[in-house]
Parts: sequence; structure tokens; C-alpha cells
Amino acid sequence: LIHSVYIEMEQPTLSDNVSDADRTIRELRKKTGHEYFQCSLGCIQNLAYELREGMWKATFTLSRQSKDVWRILHVKHGDNTDNSYGLAVDIGTTTVVVQLINMKTGNVIGVEGNHNLQSRYGEDVISRMIYACGREKGLNTLHSAIVKNINDLIDTLTKEKGVNPRDIHALVAAGNTTMSHLFLNLIPCSIRLEPYVPTATIYPQISAKDIGIDIDPDAIIETVPSISSYVGGDIVAGILACGMADRPEIKVLIDIGTNGEIAVGNNEWLVCCSASAGPAFEGGGIRYGMRATRGAIEKIFIEDGHISYQTIGNAKPRGICGSGLIDCLYEMSRNKIIDGNGSLDSSKNKDGRVIEKDGEVQFILAYPDETENGQELVITQSDIDHLIRSKGAIFAAIKSLIDYVSLSFQDIDTFYVAGGFGSFLDIKKSIGIGLLPDINPEKIQFVGNSSLMGARIYLLSTHVAERAIQIARMTTNIELSNYQPFMDEYVAAMFLPHTDRKLFPSVDY
Amino acid sequence: LIHSVYIEMEQPTLSDNVSDADRTIRELRKKTGHEYFQCSLGCIQNLAYELREGMWKATFTLSRQSKDVWRILHVKHGDNTDNSYGLAVDIGTTTVVVQLINMKTGNVIGVEGNHNLQSRYGEDVISRMIYACGREKGLNTLHSAIVKNINDLIDTLTKEKGVNPRDIHALVAAGNTTMSHLFLNLIPCSIRLEPYVPTATIYPQISAKDIGIDIDPDAIIETVPSISSYVGGDIVAGILACGMADRPEIKVLIDIGTNGEIAVGNNEWLVCCSASAGPAFEGGGIRYGMRATRGAIEKIFIEDGHISYQTIGNAKPRGICGSGLIDCLYEMSRNKIIDGNGSLDSSKNKDGRVIEKDGEVQFILAYPDETENGQELVITQSDIDHLIRSKGAIFAAIKSLIDYVSLSFQDIDTFYVAGGFGSFLDIKKSIGIGLLPDINPEKIQFVGNSSLMGARIYLLSTHVAERAIQIARMTTNIELSNYQPFMDEYVAAMFLPHTDRKLFPSVDY
Repeated sequence: LIHSVYIEMEQPTLSDNVSDADRTIRELRKKTGHEYFQCSLGCIQNLAYELREGMWKATFTLSRQSKDVWRILHVKHGDNTDNSYGLAVDIGTTTVVVQLINMKTGNVIGVEGNHNLQSRYGEDVISRMIYACGREKGLNTLHSAIVKNINDLIDTLTKEKGVNPRDIHALVAAGNTTMSHLFLNLIPCSIRLEPYVPTATIYPQISAKDIGIDIDPDAIIETVPSISSYVGGDIVAGILACGMADRPEIKVLIDIGTNGEIAVGNNEWLVCCSASAGPAFEGGGIRYGMRATRGAIEKIFIEDGHISYQTIGNAKPRGICGSGLIDCLYEMSRNKIIDGNGSLDSSKNKDGRVIEKDGEVQFILAYPDETENGQELVITQSDIDHLIRSKGAIFAAIKSLIDYVSLSFQDIDTFYVAGGFGSFLDIKKSIGIGLLPDINPEKIQFVGNSSLMGARIYLLSTHVAERAIQIARMTTNIELSNYQPFMDEYVAAMFLPHTDRKLFPSVDY
Repeated sequence: LIHSVYIEMEQPTLSDNVSDADRTIRELRKKTGHEYFQCSLGCIQNLAYELREGMWKATFTLSRQSKDVWRILHVKHGDNTDNSYGLAVDIGTTTVVVQLINMKTGNVIGVEGNHNLQSRYGEDVISRMIYACGREKGLNTLHSAIVKNINDLIDTLTKEKGVNPRDIHALVAAGNTTMSHLFLNLIPCSIRLEPYVPTATIYPQISAKDIGIDIDPDAIIETVPSISSYVGGDIVAGILACGMADRPEIKVLIDIGTNGEIAVGNNEWLVCCSASAGPAFEGGGIRYGMRATRGAIEKIFIEDGHISYQTIGNAKPRGICGSGLIDCLYEMSRNKIIDGNGSLDSSKNKDGRVIEKDGEVQFILAYPDETENGQELVITQSDIDHLIRSKGAIFAAIKSLIDYVSLSFQDIDTFYVAGGFGSFLDIKKSIGIGLLPDINPEKIQFVGNSSLMGARIYLLSTHVAERAIQIARMTTNIELSNYQPFMDEYVAAMFLPHTDRKLFPSVDY
């Protein structure tokens, strides 16, 4: 989206006393071959000082404004082409992640994440919208919260890496449609209500100063376009990251975040939907659920009543993240600790791990002496029910979408699975609980945070930015909330692995 | 620069639930025939509310961004096409004038002027630059002063005319190069020093919120381009207003403001220069000099020692404005109260009007019982010397420029004289003191504030805006400060009417 050009120019004389701006543009024409340039106000306000301070040697940061026109965002004396930075931002409903990128090399310099500060005003997008629309200044509160999230991460990252925030000249944000609206302070109130109309799906380019992001005030900020009210820029970014729209083979992308969004297609067509699966696989609504950070159980194995697990950072367990929850469900099912409906069977309580406490049946994953806080770490019956509803919704959405385009699972070339699972997702166990379809596991690729990856490649190429708009426009959105086949699939998928065992021939428990 | 479009659209349904922005653009395409639209952030932030508040009937304010692209600046529910306003602003070194214009009809709704608040930091552009460049925050102080000038006038005008400042969507400012720099907060420090390089001559389009002008925050602000460090946007605006660059006949524009700028040319070529004549004909540096406002003596006639005069608003005299000063100089010369060098001749003191006071010879124009403040109103010897230097510089510049292009005064089709003289300038007396060349008075037209006129026609047409840039680029600037023929002409012109009487055959005193 931006690039830096270093120029050494002749100083003015009485016979060549054109303005600083004209001199600059004349030299930029020579150096870049582009014809038309515009100066940002901030750039032109600093121009006279920077040119003279650097003895007519300066670095200019350019962004393409339209096909022919380049915008001069920034000027700084001397050669600073090595010190031009950009940010890729994934605005998740639960977690916000910022990547700091060197714009010359494209290298990731650092990455930091934090908990979306909007969470105190509502767990999911629906409750955020209710907060934004139900009270005076509600929208502004949520907007300010996400700006603070990002500014906090920028502060941490730039201090950590010794980068001057004023050297950051571009930011690309990807998020679901509601997050994108809150980021830009757009009214999100019609997203929630039939007929589900967002204010915008293609978002305007703005300057950092417009919303108070603490980088170069004239830095450009782009928001990855959305497809519909419930399929957002995070999915468009994911489609970009996976190259789904680049080749004729049919591919599927499933993003298991706070919602489950699914896209199917190739370079000619794309369909998508959103499963409203809830944030269970991000740890939301699960008693000991947590994000994939230090102390989260990310792998579980159960054999003969003995449980072994692995935590992130090999710390004492603090909770369970998404990949741990998938393993947990699978291992409990395989060991018949739960039945096909997910009911904890207390008759299987060979080693006292199935207990009843606070009026609910629970399964002890880690005893007090193992955990960080010295309390037992459990998964409850309602956690299990919650996970089964989530995985059922996601599988039902995949199945409905594949049926909608009259394909079968065997027609899929690659299945990309994205989500905040940390570094690891057990494909076989994901199939084993009926979350993913029972196809050759080699066709399934775990891609991690594809929204962040997409934001990064968007940041590094104007071609990708144009492609993002094409993808947002070409993708057909299926509204599942009014789609009967989805309802039927959902009911059928509320079983481990599925009520129709023929769909999961490889599952052997 | 802007126009408003009223649209009634269908409300969204499940089968047509595109975003508000897409729906708006779809309807704008149908209504205007234009293809590409961009939304300003402010517009898109209000879009959802305004569309629903007006039951899907709303008015959109558009500005052309580039050849193909239109920018949606503003949205308001209901039909407001009658209530779209613009401002034409003349930023004079001494006086700031704002015109409020209805953008639908092009009519001037009101006009207000005030004294440039920067004056307390320096009388002329040179002292302003010294202030801006010589101290910390100096530039910012001057920038804030001119913004306050304009905001004060907007406040007065909108209250007076019952216009909502948020309905003002465009502003065009014309001023000399230094004023344009201070308006946009651009560093003006190299303008003053050889080789006289401004930061910019073509200024970027900005939004009102960028510099804190109190109108629609997304309103576009354009600054009429300058030609060089000492021939500014006020002259380009004047060239536009007089249509000088539209036809093959050769025309001259003289703007007698704080400086005297002169342009000569036609639709094929233009040359210009600046005379550094000082602000005497605006009343600057003259003891009882004042702007052309209520109580200013604007006409003077002397016969047989009897003085008759006319004041603006028929008020008791408070001072003398430019046209009064020209008359005064002419009448004193014609009545031999001063000689060819401008010396007050006390031997001509038939009626006691020539007095000596505070060590200086003075001429009483109005006795204490005639004036507003009850004190005698005089013109002093140094006032007269000052006026002769000013008129000499202006005439010398005109003559030098005409000679430079190898023409004679007889080749000129029309002579436009601009300046803050109020409603009136006596052409015959202007020739009589040697300020204007001695040509057929019918060829000389007094055009008043041509800078403001030009700003207004710029505001009303994108074609004119493009033409302004062409004019700024095509005009050749002659630097008089290093031009010997000008020096010679200047010395020769320091006489009433001129040392070379042959140049003024019609002058009969």
C-alpha cells in the first residue's frame, strides 16, 4: 500500500526557484516514472523544514490514490527507506492481534495480542451491537475501546522493537463486519435486525488522525471489505491468505472464531455463510475455557483412566484452549466417558474423575496439585453440551453450503481451517468429534490466524487490496438463519460424531 | 466544486439487503450518471441514521475528486438541495472578507469583512514572515489568527442570515502567497529570502476539520493557486474574475492591495510582477488612513480653498480610504497646495489649512467640528511622500512589465483595476496623480475586490478550478527586486504626475 523513495535534489537558485512542492514532484516523477502526485497536508506542512534540514536529501512515503495518482503521505530528511513500517491488525471479537511489519522487506518484526476491551460491554457481536445502539454514546465507547486496544499494542510493539511510531505509515485491519463498523465508528444497528443491513461493506480509506491511532497522523488506514452483515473482512482476508480465489480448484475455508464463518469456491465463484456457532472453541462460555496463551491445555490424551496433557509454555495448567477442548471432547468420547449425546456417564467413574458439584456433573481434567491456582480444573456437562452445539452448527453450515452448490466433500481440493487455536490443531480428532468432515486428513490444512495473514498481504500489495474488493463483491452470501436445510443439518449434527454414522466412516470409537 | 442531489430510495428487504453505502451509490449512479463514488468518513458515519431518519429520502453533497471519481461529502435526511452553501474568502494582508453563497443558485447571500488579526504581529507580509519564522510557535499563532478571522465572519454571517454552519460544504480562499501559506499552516520562511521559494504554489484540497474551520467538518477547502512567492492566489483569482486568460485581446490587471501586483497577457501568455508598493492605498502607514468602511472619506473636491468631501454612509469623517487618498493627492496637486515633488507649500496657506504641528507640515482636510471624534483630520507631509512612493512603484511596475513584453500602453484592450477602494475609484484622478497610465479612461475598469470575485467563480465551477491551476503554471513571473529597468522607472515616477510629462498628455494642472 505504501512505498518509500529516497531522493537527492538540487537546491533552488534564482533561475530555478520553483516551490518546494513542485521541486519534490519533479524529482519524484524522474525517480518513479509516475506522473501525478498529491501532497497530504501533513507532508506539505513539514516539507520546507525537512528538505532544508536534510540539505535537499529526503525520503518520501507514497501511497497509490487511484490508478494514476500517487499521494505523498510523509517526508523525512535523509535516507529512511529502511525505517518504514506498517501494521496488520486482526480485530477479533475476543482477541485483537497486531503485527508490526517492515515495509521494505515485508518481514514481520513483532506481533502482540490482547483481549478486546469491548468485552466488558458484551461477550459477542450481538451484545456489542445492543450496547452500541441502546444507549447514548454506546457506539463511541466501543469505538474508543478498540482504538485503545490497538494503541496499547502499538505502544508495546514499538517500545519492544525500538521503532518510532511516527515511522508507521500504513495500517490494514481485518475483522468481522461488526468489529469493522466499531473500528470506524460506523452505526452497526441494522446488522442485527432483519434484513441484516450493514452501513458499509467496502470501507473508506482514512488517515490515522481521523480515529486517533497513534502512528504517523497521515498514515493510511484500510479496513478489509466485508461480504455481508455476518461474513466480514476477516473471511475476505482469509480467502486472500489461502489464495482460494486464485485457482480453479475448489477450496473451503472455515474460520472457527467467535462465530464460525465458512467460504467455498474458486477463482470463478465463491459462496459463504456464518454459523453463529458461538465462541466455545475460543474458550468462550466454557468454565475453564481460555485463549491459546501460556498455561492453556492445548493437547489431551486419555488412556485407561490416565490423563496426559500438554500446556502452552509447559506451564502449570490455567485453563483449556480450543485445541484442548477438541481433544478433550474426542478423548472423552473415545474412552466412553461421555456417550453419543455427550452425557457424562458417572457409571464410568472408575477413578473418581467424574464428580457432582454445585448441582452439575463435571469431569476432573487436572487435580488441585497440578494446576496453577491450586484448584481442580474441570469440564462440566454444560461445557460439553455447549461444545457439541458449536461443533454441530459449524459442521451443519459446512454441509449446507457444500450441498447448496451441489458438490460433495470429495470434490474439495483443500480444506483450510483457521482460528485462534495456537500453534496446533489435531485434524484427526476434529474429524472424530464431527467438527470437520471425514475426508482425507491430508486435504485439511490448519492455517492459524488467516485474518491476520490476509491483512498482512493486503498491506504489502495494492493488487491484493483491489482483489479484496473484487472478492467482497463476487461472493454470494447465504443467510442460514432462514435456511431450512441448515436447521435439519444442525439437529442431525448434535451427536458425537454425528447421528448419521455413514458420514464418518473413519471414526472408530 | 460541490453539488447536492436529493434521492428517494427503496428500503432494504431480505432479497435486497446490500449495505447502506452500496444502496446509496447505486441510486447516485442512476440519478447522476457518474460511475465511481467514494464516501467521506463523516458521511458514512452518519449514513445509517440519516437514511432511516428520512425514511430513505436524503440529500447527498458531492464533490468531484478526480476526472471519474465523486466524493460523497455529506448526507442529510430529506430534501435539502436548497440549503447547500459555500464560502468565498479573500484573505488580504490587512482585511479578510467572506462571502456566503447559495450553491444551488450561485447567489451571494451575504458578505462580511474584518481586520486581519495577524496585523498585531506585523503590518505587512515581510513582518508576518519574520514573526512566523523567528520564534517558537510563531507560525501557529498566525495560522490560528487567520482561522479565527474566518470563523468569526462565518459566525456573524450565518447568524445574520439564519444559515446552519453545518450546511456549508465548501470554501475557496484566495490570498497572496504568504497569506495562503499561513492559512494552511505551511512554513513561509523561504519566501522572504533569495531565491524566494515558497513551500507550494498549488495547494492541496483539505477538509474543514483539518484546520478547524467551523462548518461541515468534511467540507472541502481549496486555496487558489499562486504563481510565485510574491504573486499569489489573489491575482490568479483576479485573472479568473476578469476573464483575462479567456480571449486573445491583451489585458492588464492591477491589484492595489497591501502590495501592488500586476498581470499582463491574454489566452496564450501571461506575465506578472509584484511592486512592493506598501499598503498606503489601503490606508496603511497613513495617519488617518482607514479601510473603505463607514465614516471613511471616499471622495474629495477642492476649489478655491473650499473642500467638499463625501464619506461612506454619509457619516461624520473618521479617516480617509484609498479612493479618498487618490482624490486628495490629485486635488492638492491641481490646486498647487503641493508641488510636483509633493511638498506642502505653506505659502499657499490662504485659509489656514496648512499648519505645522508635532514638527511636521500638515494639511487640514476636516476641522474638529466636522469629524466624528472632534479632532481635526489631516494629511501630513510624510503621508504624501508615502503615497507618492506607492503610486510611483505601481506605475513603474506597470511600465516595466509592458516594456518587458515589448508593448505600449496603446496595445492594451482593457485595464482592470482591483483593490479595496469601496464602491468607487476616480479613474481620471488616478491618472492625474500618475498611478495609472494616461490612456482612454473608457479602457480602464474598476473591478473592486477581484480576488473575492475569483474565489466565488472558482467555488461555483470545477472547470474554473482546473483553469486556475493552468493559469498559475503558465504565468511568467518577473522578479522586480533584481530588475534594473524597474529601478529606473521607479525613480522617474516619484513626481506628480511623472518626471516625463509626455507620458501624461491629458493631465492639465
